[in-house]
Amino acid sequence: MSAKKLHFGIIGAGRIGRVHAETLAFRLPEAHTVAITDVNAEAAQQVAARCNIPAVAASAEEIFANPQIEAVLICSSTNTHADLIVQAAKAGKHIFCEKPISLDLAKIDAALAAVKSAGVQLQIGFNRRFDANFARVRNAVASGEIGAPSLMHIISRDPAPPPISYVRVSGGMFVDMTIHDFDMARFLIGDEVEEIYTAGGVMVDPEIGKAGDIDTALIVLRFRNGVIGTIDNSRKAVYGYDQRVEILGSAGKIATENCYPNQAVVSGAETVHRDLPLNFFMERYTESFVTELRSFTASVLENRPTAVTGIDGRIPVVMAIAARKSYDEHRPVRLSEIG
Amino acid sequence: MSAKKLHFGIIGAGRIGRVHAETLAFRLPEAHTVAITDVNAEAAQQVAARCNIPAVAASAEEIFANPQIEAVLICSSTNTHADLIVQAAKAGKHIFCEKPISLDLAKIDAALAAVKSAGVQLQIGFNRRFDANFARVRNAVASGEIGAPSLMHIISRDPAPPPISYVRVSGGMFVDMTIHDFDMARFLIGDEVEEIYTAGGVMVDPEIGKAGDIDTALIVLRFRNGVIGTIDNSRKAVYGYDQRVEILGSAGKIATENCYPNQAVVSGAETVHRDLPLNFFMERYTESFVTELRSFTASVLENRPTAVTGIDGRIPVVMAIAARKSYDEHRPVRLSEIG
Amino acid sequence: MSAKKLHFGIIGAGRIGRVHAETLAFRLPEAHTVAITDVNAEAAQQVAARCNIPAVAASAEEIFANPQIEAVLICSSTNTHADLIVQAAKAGKHIFCEKPISLDLAKIDAALAAVKSAGVQLQIGFNRRFDANFARVRNAVASGEIGAPSLMHIISRDPAPPPISYVRVSGGMFVDMTIHDFDMARFLIGDEVEEIYTAGGVMVDPEIGKAGDIDTALIVLRFRNGVIGTIDNSRKAVYGYDQRVEILGSAGKIATENCYPNQAVVSGAETVHRDLPLNFFMERYTESFVTELRSFTASVLENRPTAVTGIDGRIPVVMAIAARKSYDEHRPVRLSEIG
Amino acid sequence: MSAKKLHFGIIGAGRIGRVHAETLAFRLPEAHTVAITDVNAEAAQQVAARCNIPAVAASAEEIFANPQIEAVLICSSTNTHADLIVQAAKAGKHIFCEKPISLDLAKIDAALAAVKSAGVQLQIGFNRRFDANFARVRNAVASGEIGAPSLMHIISRDPAPPPISYVRVSGGMFVDMTIHDFDMARFLIGDEVEEIYTAGGVMVDPEIGKAGDIDTALIVLRFRNGVIGTIDNSRKAVYGYDQRVEILGSAGKIATENCYPNQAVVSGAETVHRDLPLNFFMERYTESFVTELRSFTASVLENRPTAVTGIDGRIPVVMAIAARKSYDEHRPVRLSEIG
Repeated sequence: MSAKKLHFGIIGAGRIGRVHAETLAFRLPEAHTVAITDVNAEAAQQVAARCNIPAVAASAEEIFANPQIEAVLICSSTNTHADLIVQAAKAGKHIFCEKPISLDLAKIDAALAAVKSAGVQLQIGFNRRFDANFARVRNAVASGEIGAPSLMHIISRDPAPPPISYVRVSGGMFVDMTIHDFDMARFLIGDEVEEIYTAGGVMVDPEIGKAGDIDTALIVLRFRNGVIGTIDNSRKAVYGYDQRVEILGSAGKIATENCYPNQAVVSGAETVHRDLPLNFFMERYTESFVTELRSFTASVLENRPTAVTGIDGRIPVVMAIAARKSYDEHRPVRLSEIG
Repeated sequence: MSAKKLHFGIIGAGRIGRVHAETLAFRLPEAHTVAITDVNAEAAQQVAARCNIPAVAASAEEIFANPQIEAVLICSSTNTHADLIVQAAKAGKHIFCEKPISLDLAKIDAALAAVKSAGVQLQIGFNRRFDANFARVRNAVASGEIGAPSLMHIISRDPAPPPISYVRVSGGMFVDMTIHDFDMARFLIGDEVEEIYTAGGVMVDPEIGKAGDIDTALIVLRFRNGVIGTIDNSRKAVYGYDQRVEILGSAGKIATENCYPNQAVVSGAETVHRDLPLNFFMERYTESFVTELRSFTASVLENRPTAVTGIDGRIPVVMAIAARKSYDEHRPVRLSEIG
Repeated sequence: MSAKKLHFGIIGAGRIGRVHAETLAFRLPEAHTVAITDVNAEAAQQVAARCNIPAVAASAEEIFANPQIEAVLICSSTNTHADLIVQAAKAGKHIFCEKPISLDLAKIDAALAAVKSAGVQLQIGFNRRFDANFARVRNAVASGEIGAPSLMHIISRDPAPPPISYVRVSGGMFVDMTIHDFDMARFLIGDEVEEIYTAGGVMVDPEIGKAGDIDTALIVLRFRNGVIGTIDNSRKAVYGYDQRVEILGSAGKIATENCYPNQAVVSGAETVHRDLPLNFFMERYTESFVTELRSFTASVLENRPTAVTGIDGRIPVVMAIAARKSYDEHRPVRLSEIG
Repeated sequence: MSAKKLHFGIIGAGRIGRVHAETLAFRLPEAHTVAITDVNAEAAQQVAARCNIPAVAASAEEIFANPQIEAVLICSSTNTHADLIVQAAKAGKHIFCEKPISLDLAKIDAALAAVKSAGVQLQIGFNRRFDANFARVRNAVASGEIGAPSLMHIISRDPAPPPISYVRVSGGMFVDMTIHDFDMARFLIGDEVEEIYTAGGVMVDPEIGKAGDIDTALIVLRFRNGVIGTIDNSRKAVYGYDQRVEILGSAGKIATENCYPNQAVVSGAETVHRDLPLNFFMERYTESFVTELRSFTASVLENRPTAVTGIDGRIPVVMAIAARKSYDEHRPVRLSEIG
């Protein structure tokens, strides 16, 4: 109880910033938030009031300049991530940054270089690694419980597409949505992907196609160790958020099911049925948001590497670029072709 | 965020007291704990430190005398509940009390009379009503989703028996363990039980029998509205905590499954298997402990009846007495035979 | 292929007689049906044509007198079973008889005495013992896979009640429907029931009550070895035939689910659902009808005891009488009280 | 019962020939087998004895020359199929032929031309279409129950690889094993595949690689109507035969699970488990072998098109060739590139 606490500053008081602020306030006794800032000052004030954060800072610079703050959470818009990482690193702060670092590999590399040079810790917000289901699957692979893996499937479907206005600035489905699955693939298999082949199309909403994006994809991954796998993405599953993985190994298979709000099954006159799965990521991954921050905090306090490093933030962006290139050029693309 | 808060005093810093203190501190912005007390002052201090509770009171009396405190949580040992309810009521405090109120119906009646006379609110800690699974089942009955209910089953098995030292002072399995199921039966069906028949025995540990208790029981309940049901209790299920219900109605059936730490299924060379269910009540009913206090707090703040009233605390004790009488006399016993 | 065949005569060409005739004709190469008879000669002729049975006999007597026939299937109406067993035994025929032997214990005893005196084999048609699910459960108990059993549940619900005209002559739900569950209880636990307590009522159709029967029951069984269990019966489950069992033992639990026409699950916009379970016994227990006759044929050909003996036919009738007595007298009834 | 019967001749008394002979003999009253032949006369005689087939023919020619025979089952080795189809067609017999017709498209075309010219019926033995699970999925797509399909997955894994001696003459995994999945894909979606991309490797047994084949594959299919899907193949799944499909549509998802020998679940001290799925195709697809012959017989007797036509036999061979070409050339291959 009297153990050392890690002092945080939070940059960004939007949806995910608020979630993280609540986690630090109500779930992690080993964390203390010193200040929060947002371009929308009112949003920052509301979160500060809700989470007992003593100060609202006028800017990220003010956060970086605060000597009491040891670590920052970067929860601002994607285009600011890389620059803020550089500034935070220069200020000697440990960094937890939401994904993606940037869509520009040069900016990512600059950010990672700054982190390295400063000797601070960096963790990227790939929260799904901390989900109990996927952690259990990773454990089955890592422990040899299913033997040597050979085939992998990731199903990752959203309940409904985002607004077209968002689609236009999202950077595309591969960067916006599949990026979590690219990370998941590497995490589950514990090895690197060498080549990607993408089949996809516009099957949910023609407006998404007009915006230059696709909404449905099957991506084939070939890993360095020979494993082959698929990622199945759709922007729309009417039954809710569909998040499953399956791995076949030489000694067995492990597969996860979706999570449901309850375990009740109704047998009626027409069907045997249950309620729909948890609808979207805030419900489905609630606990993983807590666990990733607990992990980050422990890594910093105990001075050991974070669970999701800067490289873990870079590679999925490379994969997203390769996936798009494969789709555009209608051929398998090796990751070594990308920057 | 700036809404009115309810000010609490907590009596008892044992396991459940600590759980409730954490809930008030970290999950309920609408609650504020003013002080905590325990016969073990060190325990109270530890919880206070962990949960940012400003004061440790020397006694329950000090809690009752604190004008800032509007509501008390009674989490002390069972034999103190009834007296503390009386004192709290006299002090004009609203009361959340762990189950059971008492094993002595006269003491329960005195406590309820004091509550009524003082015009304060009382909620009994039957947390399972707030579990998402059982709430879903209750909803199916109340809404008519499964038509008129006819048959009900409650399975309620612990992973392992408590120490014999505890068995000796527990008041017996019906009062200690089945009492939750008696409450559940009334809650699910929404009607009162008229008659109970108990079959049971010592099948888990002969020491439990030597202590005068049983460890396995099947209890048949007959409700006023004609529904018949069973409660299945065992002090030991090697696979973990087994908590399920099933109701047959004229328009269908609803049944719940256990809760698991993850949704992963492994297909191995011998079996298709998954990890064991959540092991015991702290894991299984985590969220229900939060929800019941949220419900209590809202009831007091909004001045409406609590979800689990004093009568809801009394009747399961009557049922437990009837269940034991049925077991001892080897015949169905009507609740009207009990005090 | 050239192995010895058992030569059968079939008495009764109704629904179950036809099922058995088809099994002998199309599924059991080791069986040959010589003749069939029925009070309705046309029915017998139809089954004979369908199943390539060379002769239609004018009466059961003609079957018994046929020296080519080694074994008879008694599939006629219940009130004829006991007499036909006596005649068949006197004629030196091995006997497979549908349940129940009789509702009159004296007639059962006379039939069993005739069988014993003649030294022929007798098997009673408790086909569910041969169902893959229940056989698996029995195996788990017998092999010690779940340790020493303590609690047992049988759920046995029909999709819809029979016509009232049938209810009036059925002998009552306990003899007509529960008798299968009484057999199942003995089979699964591998021990005898000492005492029965019945709670029940008319919840499906008041006409059933007017006919002097009940349509819903919970029956508590206490076995000689200490196991306690329940049978849950309803004449109506709108979702179809509900046939499940569950046993708790000192080393684990085994429970069965219903059987479904397919394993497809549909995730729609409202629910996640599957088709209803197999609707009634002809679909649900199809294979068990084959397996029981294969078992009987092998027992006779190999001259070893049948899997379901005459005593196995008698005891469930005693249990049915005890269950009714318990219901009428509102108290637990020991089987030793019954004739 | 007195309805017209179809008179069959069977060519081939190996494993599948025997299964079909038993189906005709014991399950289809509307069928009568006149004669059977096999290059191994003893095998033919054994099946004839078992299935009450009156004659064993010396050759296929004798079958074709028998005027009593209206339809033939071609169950001989693959390399004889096309020629036998031609001969049977010339003899005016309706034809049920096991898959594949041939691995040589020219021979297939010649066989289909002969069938067309003779005006006889032809059905190919893609039995899985008649499996209750896959038929249910097809129905969900065809009826619009899940809306417009967008993504499809077929998992098809064998419990263990065949002997290397068989692998060498099998024509390769795509023709030997995946061919069923190619048919399934077309059947489920109800449209044609335009393009195939194959990723694969040798992950089960290096000997398979030395024999020039692969044992593991992921095949991406692009349909004319825009649907994209995958086939997942492995020659080895230690937990048994893994046969599942899943389709996402605009109005929902349908997915099937494997079939199990029983529905019993054991909760033990280590895991919650069930027995392994049905091990291989003879257990898993038992009923579908009956249903396909029932369908063929009805098609001939009622003079309507068969459910699986000659074209349905040709296209999966084209797909297998394309899949191999894609694997060899490491690029997506359009079916229009193939002969």
